Amino acid sequence: MVLVRKKSSKLEAFDEGKLMKSLLRANASKRVAKLVVEKVKEKLYDGISTEEIYKEAFRILREEEKHAAIKYDLKRALFRLGPTGFYFENYISELFREVYNYETKVRRLIRGKCVEHEVDVICKLDGDEYMLVECKYHNSQGIYTGLKTVMYTFARFLDLREGHKLKFCENFTEVCLATNTKFSDKAKAYASCRGIKLIGWKYPKGESLNNLIDKKCLYPVTILRNVDSFSLERLANANLLLVKDLIELSAKEIRSRTGLREKDILAIVEEAEMLLHS
Amino acid sequence: MVLVRKKSSKLEAFDEGKLMKSLLRANASKRVAKLVVEKVKEKLYDGISTEEIYKEAFRILREEEKHAAIKYDLKRALFRLGPTGFYFENYISELFREVYNYETKVRRLIRGKCVEHEVDVICKLDGDEYMLVECKYHNSQGIYTGLKTVMYTFARFLDLREGHKLKFCENFTEVCLATNTKFSDKAKAYASCRGIKLIGWKYPKGESLNNLIDKKCLYPVTILRNVDSFSLERLANANLLLVKDLIELSAKEIRSRTGLREKDILAIVEEAEMLLHS
Repeated sequence: MVLVRKKSSKLEAFDEGKLMKSLLRANASKRVAKLVVEKVKEKLYDGISTEEIYKEAFRILREEEKHAAIKYDLKRALFRLGPTGFYFENYISELFREVYNYETKVRRLIRGKCVEHEVDVICKLDGDEYMLVECKYHNSQGIYTGLKTVMYTFARFLDLREGHKLKFCENFTEVCLATNTKFSDKAKAYASCRGIKLIGWKYPKGESLNNLIDKKCLYPVTILRNVDSFSLERLANANLLLVKDLIELSAKEIRSRTGLREKDILAIVEEAEMLLHS
Repeated sequence: MVLVRKKSSKLEAFDEGKLMKSLLRANASKRVAKLVVEKVKEKLYDGISTEEIYKEAFRILREEEKHAAIKYDLKRALFRLGPTGFYFENYISELFREVYNYETKVRRLIRGKCVEHEVDVICKLDGDEYMLVECKYHNSQGIYTGLKTVMYTFARFLDLREGHKLKFCENFTEVCLATNTKFSDKAKAYASCRGIKLIGWKYPKGESLNNLIDKKCLYPVTILRNVDSFSLERLANANLLLVKDLIELSAKEIRSRTGLREKDILAIVEEAEMLLHS
């Protein structure tokens, strides 16, 4: 029997079934999960940490079923941020903060020339310039973000630009529309013509939502099987929507910020480590 | 027994039950319907026309239950133009043609600066100027037409104005958003600030959808109880969406344009006369 050192420093017998289960949860096939467990068992020694075990397991998993494991699930993980658009807005805000180093704010009321707008995400750029980000979350597949959405985003941008000239608001110099689905061809043509930045599913190449997420492993917590709608709400309210946030904090801190049970937090963190330490 | 002259010139015995039924269909209460029948009977003479009978009946009905009869039902009649927005677009086109004497066209693809737009209704104004009409049909009550709809309407207008400068399209100098429901306060504020004409349920005062309809009795055919979804489709395809159109044509003409059965057409026309000859 091999003893494993847990995060809490406690020693515990290595549990083959537990590892197996977490691999299956991460979308591994049965065949590959078995293979991973066998290979991990070869590397065990007394006092090995859970983190080392998961690192090793995920390294093997990635070699065997890299795409199947994560990418297949990412699209669904984004849908699971619903059913409303709030968590998607928060998630986009976190993503932009991590990828571009912007200071971001969510859901601000800002006075334009004609009316006050609820802006989903504001990014502070260099100097005193700002980017307006409109978020369009769809909670089922196959719904394209279309021309009308890009058009009202542009109209909002214009109203805020004119609002700035009247000293009603910040100086918005850029505009972006972020969605979790695809864009229609007309939406793309209009956005390109008007200088509106689009970020969506697999679009545009090199800076799509997928690319941004991959860049620094910015997976949403909904990619974790142990995050249900109850814990999602708690995590979102605590501004913990990225899997990497969960790794950087101690279970105690997560507990005090979310009020979730320790047992649930440990299961979530374990899965998070499994995903990222690869 | 009194003999009544029908539209076809045939003579027929006066049928008290038939008159009663048509009154109830027109939303009269039982008490008032009975009263109307009694009063009509006092005015009968051999050779009286069906039209005279209905004129008299409706005159009395209006005195007794004016609001109940028509206005209560108009809102629902507009909803019955659904479930999609096509018939509402056609209806708005007919309405603008009748009220303002505009030449109108529906659902035209028009090239703007950035993309090609499907314009719901185009109205030819004086000279070579045109008005763009965006139609927003809601098929259930309580849904307001909001800011985003007015904003994309404005963005579309801008794109067509710039398209005209590039000689891609007609010279659109006015823009209107027509809906069968109410507008949100922000939608109204934005539209007023941007010079967008709004026409909706009870808005704006004096030129609301209700006012336009009342002006020349431009009721949609869906206000008639005898128009079901099958006959609506036939009438719409024949461009017969106004009750008044039905009165101006002979049953034979309606039949050749719609392919509806004579029996159904006569019932529809009878009700139409009941509604308008008051």
